[in-house]
Amino acid sequence: MNTFSLYVTACLLFMGFGAHAQDTYYCLPCNNPCDDIAFNAPGKCTHCNMELVKQTKEEHERLAKKDRLKVAFYLQNGVEVLDFAGPLEVFTYAGFEVFIVSKDKNQLFAQGVLRITPDYDITNAPAADIIAFFGGNAGKAANDPDVISWLKKQTNVQHYFSVCTGAFILGKAGLLDGLTVTTFHESIEGLQAAVPQAKVLSNVRYVDNGRVITTAGISAGIDGALHLVAKLRGDEMAKKVAAYMEYDKWVPDQGMVAKQQ
Amino acid sequence: MNTFSLYVTACLLFMGFGAHAQDTYYCLPCNNPCDDIAFNAPGKCTHCNMELVKQTKEEHERLAKKDRLKVAFYLQNGVEVLDFAGPLEVFTYAGFEVFIVSKDKNQLFAQGVLRITPDYDITNAPAADIIAFFGGNAGKAANDPDVISWLKKQTNVQHYFSVCTGAFILGKAGLLDGLTVTTFHESIEGLQAAVPQAKVLSNVRYVDNGRVITTAGISAGIDGALHLVAKLRGDEMAKKVAAYMEYDKWVPDQGMVAKQQ
Repeated sequence: MNTFSLYVTACLLFMGFGAHAQDTYYCLPCNNPCDDIAFNAPGKCTHCNMELVKQTKEEHERLAKKDRLKVAFYLQNGVEVLDFAGPLEVFTYAGFEVFIVSKDKNQLFAQGVLRITPDYDITNAPAADIIAFFGGNAGKAANDPDVISWLKKQTNVQHYFSVCTGAFILGKAGLLDGLTVTTFHESIEGLQAAVPQAKVLSNVRYVDNGRVITTAGISAGIDGALHLVAKLRGDEMAKKVAAYMEYDKWVPDQGMVAKQQ
Repeated sequence: MNTFSLYVTACLLFMGFGAHAQDTYYCLPCNNPCDDIAFNAPGKCTHCNMELVKQTKEEHERLAKKDRLKVAFYLQNGVEVLDFAGPLEVFTYAGFEVFIVSKDKNQLFAQGVLRITPDYDITNAPAADIIAFFGGNAGKAANDPDVISWLKKQTNVQHYFSVCTGAFILGKAGLLDGLTVTTFHESIEGLQAAVPQAKVLSNVRYVDNGRVITTAGISAGIDGALHLVAKLRGDEMAKKVAAYMEYDKWVPDQGMVAKQQ
């Protein structure tokens, strides 16, 4: 091999034209700048330590940008922190884009402990693929005609998701009628009374009706969110997210699928 | 029984001087106004639905006010949401008073998703009984001399608590030297290199060294917090909190107690 050939070979290797010239690897989405770094070998992201997955640049851009599912988290003043924090963690690591919506842009006081400023109010929140409601003072939202009116207008969402007594908000908008649903263990009878046309189950971690997923109380939101990730992005992605967040205790399919979509 | 006796009996019953004249019942602390309502029969709080526990007024006031443990949650910009949300839920339902401290009073952006305003900065945070650190951009706090200097001054705390890579902050302040500890599964080697005088374990949900409790990643903070509640307030309280938050998956003692305090 002469000097010129050596030079060309070195350049090609440097440019990634090796044995797998076409392969690029990206870390699982973590909302950090490393999400957009293309690695040329499998392994782990040197920035966030997430496992790298093989994707073409086009696949990556489609998943990371254009086709990134948008999830609106509606938070009311007094919302329970773990109710929304579990699903927020799951959806974020699954590469979904989560944003926070409230009745107005005022700072809210979650569980009397955590001061949160919403990204949007109900007058300017962008369209979402998934809209999620949570417990903790959920009656405030359920009994607010403006919130229910806004929710009723969100007819293009793919999925409605509730944790704990967030189900009362979906119920007030008529979204649970005719469905099998669940809620916080102390509120089973209350939800049944509030939504007589639904069948409210106890002792189930989540119930999936295809378009509407309701979960039991507080920590059960984690399981419901992992179920939704498995449904939309496959079991492998859900397992990776659970492993990353060290939710070793997760038992897939520990809820009930009442209706496939 | 004459009319006067009937009247006196009725008054006494009305005033609660029945068979258990001395008994009062309070709901488990939930940071709502019902925390201070004294019920005269066991059952559930009619406001928050939490189970009522028998306490004298004096016991209640001691637990709810004077002896209420104060927990400082140090949150840095980029902090992982579930890292702190799990313990926040546990400690709050155990009746501890949680407040949020950061380097300054600026709004911080947790995990690139949640906008949080701290209650205090490190110049004005009140003294705490427990001080807690969390992962997600933890290097920012670990490498900030002002934060480490503040932490080193908190010598009167009963317990130091870390979730995930929050352990790097405790390590930087020299608080892990000579201890057996743990951290996020991807950071075991990194912490061992950063704190060579500690023994860093993998595959353990938390390690309790008496005064210092470190937990594994993200969701493992829930287990570590429940362990600390069991240690400080008894197994029954920890089990009640786990049941309330529907953390059915909790297996008590799934960590390691390296040293009793």
